[in-house]
Amino acid sequence: MKRTEISTLGEFGLIQHLTKNINLINSSTVKGVGDDCAILKYNDDKEVLVTTDLLLEGIHFDLTYTPLKHLGYKSVMVNLSDIYAMNGRPKQITVSLGLSKRFCVEDVDQLFAGILLACQQHGVDLVGGDTSASMTGLTISITAIGEGTKGKTVRRDGAKVNDLICVSGNLGAAYMGLQILEREKAVFEGTKEENIQPDFAGKEYLLERQLRPEARRDIIDRLEEKGIIPTAMMDISDGLSSELLHICHASNVGCRVFEDRIPIDFQTASTAEEFNMSLTTAAMNGGEDYELLFTVPLELHDLIKQVEDVHLIGHICEKKFGSSLVARDNQEFELKAQGWQAFNNTEK
Amino acid sequence: MKRTEISTLGEFGLIQHLTKNINLINSSTVKGVGDDCAILKYNDDKEVLVTTDLLLEGIHFDLTYTPLKHLGYKSVMVNLSDIYAMNGRPKQITVSLGLSKRFCVEDVDQLFAGILLACQQHGVDLVGGDTSASMTGLTISITAIGEGTKGKTVRRDGAKVNDLICVSGNLGAAYMGLQILEREKAVFEGTKEENIQPDFAGKEYLLERQLRPEARRDIIDRLEEKGIIPTAMMDISDGLSSELLHICHASNVGCRVFEDRIPIDFQTASTAEEFNMSLTTAAMNGGEDYELLFTVPLELHDLIKQVEDVHLIGHICEKKFGSSLVARDNQEFELKAQGWQAFNNTEK
Repeated sequence: MKRTEISTLGEFGLIQHLTKNINLINSSTVKGVGDDCAILKYNDDKEVLVTTDLLLEGIHFDLTYTPLKHLGYKSVMVNLSDIYAMNGRPKQITVSLGLSKRFCVEDVDQLFAGILLACQQHGVDLVGGDTSASMTGLTISITAIGEGTKGKTVRRDGAKVNDLICVSGNLGAAYMGLQILEREKAVFEGTKEENIQPDFAGKEYLLERQLRPEARRDIIDRLEEKGIIPTAMMDISDGLSSELLHICHASNVGCRVFEDRIPIDFQTASTAEEFNMSLTTAAMNGGEDYELLFTVPLELHDLIKQVEDVHLIGHICEKKFGSSLVARDNQEFELKAQGWQAFNNTEK
Repeated sequence: MKRTEISTLGEFGLIQHLTKNINLINSSTVKGVGDDCAILKYNDDKEVLVTTDLLLEGIHFDLTYTPLKHLGYKSVMVNLSDIYAMNGRPKQITVSLGLSKRFCVEDVDQLFAGILLACQQHGVDLVGGDTSASMTGLTISITAIGEGTKGKTVRRDGAKVNDLICVSGNLGAAYMGLQILEREKAVFEGTKEENIQPDFAGKEYLLERQLRPEARRDIIDRLEEKGIIPTAMMDISDGLSSELLHICHASNVGCRVFEDRIPIDFQTASTAEEFNMSLTTAAMNGGEDYELLFTVPLELHDLIKQVEDVHLIGHICEKKFGSSLVARDNQEFELKAQGWQAFNNTEK
């Protein structure tokens, strides 16, 4: 494969190369890449939503098993997911890249192909960013800007006692996908054979959930069709337990969620068994699901049951009753944010 | 000095620790830190400006001689400078940090003290961000959001033939400051003595320009007072030559700037001589000045001359005449963007 050193283009050459095919699609984008700032414009009844995520090689992704195109796609998704989690629509992103000498122009093209595909599929304009050399590894920092309608933007602090707790899709799959990738990497590194192929048969769904997650615009669309505005909402990036505690803390309430209601895919369950892992722990604390967790008033019970791929998993209670998971045998376990303790994972 | 490991707080603890004293000051900030997104709101006649910069240890800063508080301040300034360069006013920032184990909570406090001081001095709200462990070094990614008035936002593509070319402050000082810091670092590393003190006497201004630059809000204010709207504007981050070429390219024009008109501080001149460096090269290509470069119609000549700390350095001409620096002996040198070739500087 062709390898063009980034230094042959220089920073401005690289920017020009990466941005030459960007078409602007949103009327709120007045001016995109190519000036000190992008210029955006919103109507008076709209709110502007802003979110940002930093992804660092060795911490958030492992290029041994992550295709750059998928990584680009995922980097955008984790930001768009935050905009949807406010009941908003993403409109623009900025992308900053730090690139060590290990990366060539073709690598950056792959990464950008994934970024632009994500933009295209979610109707988002790439309007700016920054590119820089880095001493080691790949750094990706993305900021997403979205639009919310005044009065319909959903925060995490609005959950009320007796609200139903809902979650989209299923949980724990991305986490089990990561376990498989890590296992195959260890096998691969332990062998001298050159042509060893990892065995992913029957695990495709888990790998896709880990490598190429999809932000749940469809859920936001369906809720809007039904006229449902959640009282509180978050996306699940650090794990269900952690996000539930965030909502309960911000809303000054407690909750009960039921183990047998947690939606789990068959591949997740069978792989957890294979790894001899607790399935509930994977679903509650695995993280990177990018599903939506939200609460709706009890009186919407019948309406929310009609929304495809949304599952009722519990209810909000008074704060004094705490936040617990109710197991299949009716035992209650206090929720803990075991989440993703990034600051304990690094070696340097 | 006390050293609290970041892992003792965890990610959420660190965020809570860093953001507990943030007060929101802008009415366009509906909701700041603490949800999936910040929520902003702008009036119908306002435009939203967005810019982002990525700063990586070993590439953009050297912690051997950069105090963390100054670094925090500068990281914000380089972003605000981009907003002012559109004739806008910064209103919000998001801050993402990647932190290796080398950094403790007290370090991050120092960095944040500089970030918050910059926000305070420029009336900006910190509304969100991301914190993460990193494998090596410190990563800072900041996105600034600002407000422009429809019809008064200044891009880089509006320069017209015969427009006057103006620059604020003086150029080359930050670059000479960097030379001094690098020299003292080399001296320091070459010696075994423990208590050697670097000799910065008489260079204080240059060090301040390098370590603690100030975005030129004052210039934007003065132009507004006089009712002057530049036809094109940029901030000078990569060097005057590079930015002039950007404006000429975007505006489809050429330019003549005059060597004897380039504003240069006395300390810059004397230090260039001491280092046996070309003063003009330092001023034209040094970069990191964060001064404003802009063009105004010729008929505003008398008015612009009244604006404090703004200097006329040349004029815009037809594209066919090219973009040149006119030396003291009237020889013309074609401008080249020698700028800052970040992608040639790294060793890995």
